[in-house]
Amino acid sequence: MPRYKFIIEYNGSAYHGWQYQENLPTIQGEIESAIFKITQESIRLQVSGRTDAGVHALGQVAHADINKLMDPFRLTYGLNHFLTNKGISILSTETCDTTFHARFSTKARTYLYKIINRRAPLTVDMKLAYHVPLPLDVTSMNEAAKYLIGHHDFTSFRASECQALSPKKTLEQAEFKQSNNLIEFHTRSKSFLHHQVRNMVGTLCLVGVGKWQPKDIQIALLAKNRKAAGPTAPPDGLYLREIIY
Amino acid sequence: MPRYKFIIEYNGSAYHGWQYQENLPTIQGEIESAIFKITQESIRLQVSGRTDAGVHALGQVAHADINKLMDPFRLTYGLNHFLTNKGISILSTETCDTTFHARFSTKARTYLYKIINRRAPLTVDMKLAYHVPLPLDVTSMNEAAKYLIGHHDFTSFRASECQALSPKKTLEQAEFKQSNNLIEFHTRSKSFLHHQVRNMVGTLCLVGVGKWQPKDIQIALLAKNRKAAGPTAPPDGLYLREIIY
Repeated sequence: MPRYKFIIEYNGSAYHGWQYQENLPTIQGEIESAIFKITQESIRLQVSGRTDAGVHALGQVAHADINKLMDPFRLTYGLNHFLTNKGISILSTETCDTTFHARFSTKARTYLYKIINRRAPLTVDMKLAYHVPLPLDVTSMNEAAKYLIGHHDFTSFRASECQALSPKKTLEQAEFKQSNNLIEFHTRSKSFLHHQVRNMVGTLCLVGVGKWQPKDIQIALLAKNRKAAGPTAPPDGLYLREIIY
Repeated sequence: MPRYKFIIEYNGSAYHGWQYQENLPTIQGEIESAIFKITQESIRLQVSGRTDAGVHALGQVAHADINKLMDPFRLTYGLNHFLTNKGISILSTETCDTTFHARFSTKARTYLYKIINRRAPLTVDMKLAYHVPLPLDVTSMNEAAKYLIGHHDFTSFRASECQALSPKKTLEQAEFKQSNNLIEFHTRSKSFLHHQVRNMVGTLCLVGVGKWQPKDIQIALLAKNRKAAGPTAPPDGLYLREIIY
């Protein structure tokens, strides 16, 4: 049975996250429904990393074993036909070895978090970025972010419902880049805890507005207590950017 | 009576254009309604340039004479409160001399036209960019765009319903910039004919896909006949960027 690997882009605004839920719109549900329309097979997609409600993806990866042998190019075209105007797009499809697993073969994941830093409310970026009206000091935020890079216990940045076996992760990148009022946070790790990126961004914004000093991030990290860190930034600004295999 | 100058950003997707129309959602209608809620005055906004249905603005300018004297900062805040979740944002308000007129004082206008050039349908950029699935050759498009720069009769790129007195305009800039699959067209002129930017982009895309040679743009221009040029590109990719006074 051929295994297909899909690279997927989506606007998460209208969805209750990636994971299939009966009677609720989800990305997984929409794609599995499109696959059924083409193949008449009820398959379950395996994904690299589930995303929460409102979170977007520029390069999500999923795989599926489908009985029907199809030209990957035609399969992409057919899926996108059934996904028209749903804010979900199959960027590419390829057949792959059955040793490939979208989740377990992942070597690293990168996320982008977009902030628009200005007083006026958002229009074209609404639901696509986090609106922060107070001026952010990106230099301080980058100084603080450096304390998070490396191998740490990230309990302070972990959602209570997180199901990971260990709170220890190795953060390879955590860096803000500014261009006028657009601030982009780039981060990379083999894997992330639930809400980890949004909790890191929410806390780093405390540094950005001057409520915290950069060093306070290290204190929060070492506390290994979610209450020691700052709020969870909204899903709007978060993009699963790339899965590296 | 104080005159107020507003700089406005909006997502045009949900609107029947700038201009007030009874019983239809328009940008002007929404802002005038917000002004009424604050001042109980029924005023008419004067705008630098009307935009069509689906066209966006990053720096539209309008003015209004309002009896009530208000702090511009508080007025901005109040208007944005009543514009919440409408995809319209007042970036700034200032009082200005009554010799200032949003339309007649305009020295130049700049537009941005965003194209996403890839096979896969759009998700996060849906309604915010023009999706062109065939590969575009930006070098040829820029070569062609040069023929449009300068003082010309733009009849070939003018909508039949255009009300301008003369089809002659001086185009100061017409240039494509590419970054991966994002192609941005930058153009500047004292004023544009109705649909001029969209007709130029639609025609330049014929060059981009190889159906036309760059020199064919000059032939179309000299024909002074709308039928000699290419199709009108969709409103989705068009942004009124800046009004220069």
